[in-house]
Amino acid sequence: MTSRDGFQWTSETGLVQGVPSIGVISPPSNIAGVGPWDIIVVGSGYAGLTATRDLCLAGHKVLLVEARDRIGGRSWSSNIGDYPFEMGGTWVHWGQPHVWREISRYQMREELEASFDFSRGVNHFQLRTNEGESIMNHDEEDTLLAAALGKFVDVDGSMGRKIIPYAHDAFHVPEARQYDTKSAADRLKEIATSLTPNERTALESFVLLCSCGTLETTSFFEFLHWWALCGYSYQGCMDALISYKFKGGQSSFAIKFFKEALATGNLSYSFNSPVQSISDQGGNVTLTTRDGNQYTGSRLVSTIPLNVLNTVSFNPPLDFQRASAANTGHVNQCVKVHAEISNKDMRSWTGISYPFNKLTYAIGDGTTPAGNTHIVCFGGFHNHIQPEENINATKEAVQSMAPGNMDVKRLVFHNWSKDEFAKGAWFFSPPNLLSTSLDALRSRHGNVLFANSDWAVGWRSFIDGAIEEGTRAAFTVTEELRGSSKSRSRL
Amino acid sequence: MTSRDGFQWTSETGLVQGVPSIGVISPPSNIAGVGPWDIIVVGSGYAGLTATRDLCLAGHKVLLVEARDRIGGRSWSSNIGDYPFEMGGTWVHWGQPHVWREISRYQMREELEASFDFSRGVNHFQLRTNEGESIMNHDEEDTLLAAALGKFVDVDGSMGRKIIPYAHDAFHVPEARQYDTKSAADRLKEIATSLTPNERTALESFVLLCSCGTLETTSFFEFLHWWALCGYSYQGCMDALISYKFKGGQSSFAIKFFKEALATGNLSYSFNSPVQSISDQGGNVTLTTRDGNQYTGSRLVSTIPLNVLNTVSFNPPLDFQRASAANTGHVNQCVKVHAEISNKDMRSWTGISYPFNKLTYAIGDGTTPAGNTHIVCFGGFHNHIQPEENINATKEAVQSMAPGNMDVKRLVFHNWSKDEFAKGAWFFSPPNLLSTSLDALRSRHGNVLFANSDWAVGWRSFIDGAIEEGTRAAFTVTEELRGSSKSRSRL
Repeated sequence: MTSRDGFQWTSETGLVQGVPSIGVISPPSNIAGVGPWDIIVVGSGYAGLTATRDLCLAGHKVLLVEARDRIGGRSWSSNIGDYPFEMGGTWVHWGQPHVWREISRYQMREELEASFDFSRGVNHFQLRTNEGESIMNHDEEDTLLAAALGKFVDVDGSMGRKIIPYAHDAFHVPEARQYDTKSAADRLKEIATSLTPNERTALESFVLLCSCGTLETTSFFEFLHWWALCGYSYQGCMDALISYKFKGGQSSFAIKFFKEALATGNLSYSFNSPVQSISDQGGNVTLTTRDGNQYTGSRLVSTIPLNVLNTVSFNPPLDFQRASAANTGHVNQCVKVHAEISNKDMRSWTGISYPFNKLTYAIGDGTTPAGNTHIVCFGGFHNHIQPEENINATKEAVQSMAPGNMDVKRLVFHNWSKDEFAKGAWFFSPPNLLSTSLDALRSRHGNVLFANSDWAVGWRSFIDGAIEEGTRAAFTVTEELRGSSKSRSRL
Repeated sequence: MTSRDGFQWTSETGLVQGVPSIGVISPPSNIAGVGPWDIIVVGSGYAGLTATRDLCLAGHKVLLVEARDRIGGRSWSSNIGDYPFEMGGTWVHWGQPHVWREISRYQMREELEASFDFSRGVNHFQLRTNEGESIMNHDEEDTLLAAALGKFVDVDGSMGRKIIPYAHDAFHVPEARQYDTKSAADRLKEIATSLTPNERTALESFVLLCSCGTLETTSFFEFLHWWALCGYSYQGCMDALISYKFKGGQSSFAIKFFKEALATGNLSYSFNSPVQSISDQGGNVTLTTRDGNQYTGSRLVSTIPLNVLNTVSFNPPLDFQRASAANTGHVNQCVKVHAEISNKDMRSWTGISYPFNKLTYAIGDGTTPAGNTHIVCFGGFHNHIQPEENINATKEAVQSMAPGNMDVKRLVFHNWSKDEFAKGAWFFSPPNLLSTSLDALRSRHGNVLFANSDWAVGWRSFIDGAIEEGTRAAFTVTEELRGSSKSRSRL
């Protein structure tokens, strides 16, 4: 099946909108009756899929409403010629508890593979700056980044351990909040004299790879939080953030949740159904889609992302703090571009081109069935591009990562910035958003619960955080409805 | 409530068998009808509790049969004067996916605390050997152990990363199996000349703290597996193995699973009900207790630990490889003794006394309501003791960890070696057991499924592994029974 989402370019086809994905659901609706349902879940990313599955397993009648033609939200893969290109969230790790519990439960533990393969080919790191170019081996790359990151995060003489001792309770130490008033740029000023030019370039690129904002819009606290989650080490960051992915792509994982929910017999769903409004009155929640369909449930779980929360009309209106936070939004405008290139030796290549280039960080990510090398490139709001608007400029940005070695055969990407149902990629906080608004974002609104990785407490921004949030919503609703006549009557 | 399990000694009471625990279930049975049940679960440790809860949530009628008077199996806490003493499995970490998913789901994230507190007091590490004594600060302790462990595990020039790159798929690299033919003693011989005397003492003590066997009976592969799980670093080991525990004790966590299962209305249970035999015939499984009660279900999930599996009669008999593995057994004969001592300054103390002492590794673990210091001490099959048999010898072993500084007010412990339902503490493999028998231990036996941390693939031996296994069993059974008339008829 082909999704409306995503773009692909080859010299033969030119730019084409829409790419194939096993996450496309057909037929797009299975609604038989008119409801009411026990619970309506809005959104079928991992938060919505998890909530839906857990609620269906617990015997509740669930209606899943999704704007897109596919599951997965900001994490989905396109299988092109049997090879998965990850359009959004990609990497997972066994130190991420919620996602790993699911990988283990679905017995997919052996379906992971490593992005990096340094066993053959050029086997080097290419650092391109305004001043010139350095080629290093990967050990030198690790040493450079570990040193630079160490200086950045060492606010307490313990590499951040004293400030965030509990990675899943990041404000446990009250002093942690002060770091949310700082941006990455603020922190860089404090340590500027201690950094070599290459350390500074590598550090800025790495921070921007995480936030995909600018240094000024990146909360230093949130970076420290990521660092704590990754075990307070550069090696831990590499392991957790960018190393292990599904052989079959993210959609091969997401579909497990959907199919399990469907198999319970408790799932109704409607894709291609963007939400217009959500009204919580008289003890029931009524959802109205843009095309005028109305559905009613006793509870509604909204997994609408932060940056688009204010595009849906709520009645009663959202509280001021939540609405303000949504208005501020997160800052991640990631530009992730996959390139299939003919040079096999680039499989073991990594590179940073910064700050001059439109894409800044890239790695060899696989070998395609045609024997070509798959390179994944990242850019963000720094030198931001809309990759489909000028495909030649996008191709040039890829080529500029490693001049002469990027013979581009194919480009694949999803423009998250122009995606009306996301308006950005994974959550990354600007200064002062989390310390003021996290509790409000996590709170309920009458019979409406909000679940999204954007306000998870652990691996916020990650697939793990989405599952954390979906689990929380389903648990809360199941506890709440237990013993109510509505749910008992079915047993 | 007071459990039959455990021992407590004070000078006022002398040695008393049985200690209070919130994990004791009263009344011990709620069986109303005569069955049959959908599923019988044997054992209410975390594997059994997880399987029970997940199956009850999925709408199955479950009978939980437990030999003891309490939940928790090899992980339970006694609350004495409002202070929890952990009788078995204690520490958890957010890098342990299955247990952390549950902590997160039960919203207990903020109910953890650190065992170590180096903020005041003696703040040192005391290393006592046959040759003499050294006092070091904790940084020196870390440096010593990190160096020694590094030499031990560095079989590949990458600290074990190349041999076990996937910690939850530890035989992914076939060469890993060769390390299961080696014991810790074998590996020590290879690196003996590279170790300083203090490094050797610290290393042997640490390895024995993990296995609680002898160096000869400790599989080197299994130690490498722990190392991989802990992120290939000494700091990672400390974080994951011995740092974070529940403020209210393990039983405050275990009871959540039990209560949630009970609240579904799908749980029948019978405590004080040791199992005599399990018979799988005619499509149903019949369990007979020692006191002659018989219960029937369509599936049975056995969480009986490896070391006692052969005490239950199975019909048809267990396959040869599983029965042989159970006959071999694991090697962990941990002796864990809690001591309440009057010296407040010992809160920040850690110590190793090896090889001469009956207890070898200890740390300051808390401050009791009386203001005393709580020290937890570990011994194992090396210099093994039965701590209740000669309580003065046990007290002397505690005192010998830090002569002159251990004014013992109270001792609390569970003798796992004499526990007929465990015959040992957490699983630790002798050489050649895992590489030959892990698949057999994980396999089903007709309508009987086996779930226990002893044969988990990830955090085997840990609470995490128990939850992994309970999750696996419930998932398998739920998928299998879905669509059967038996389970559909209730919906």
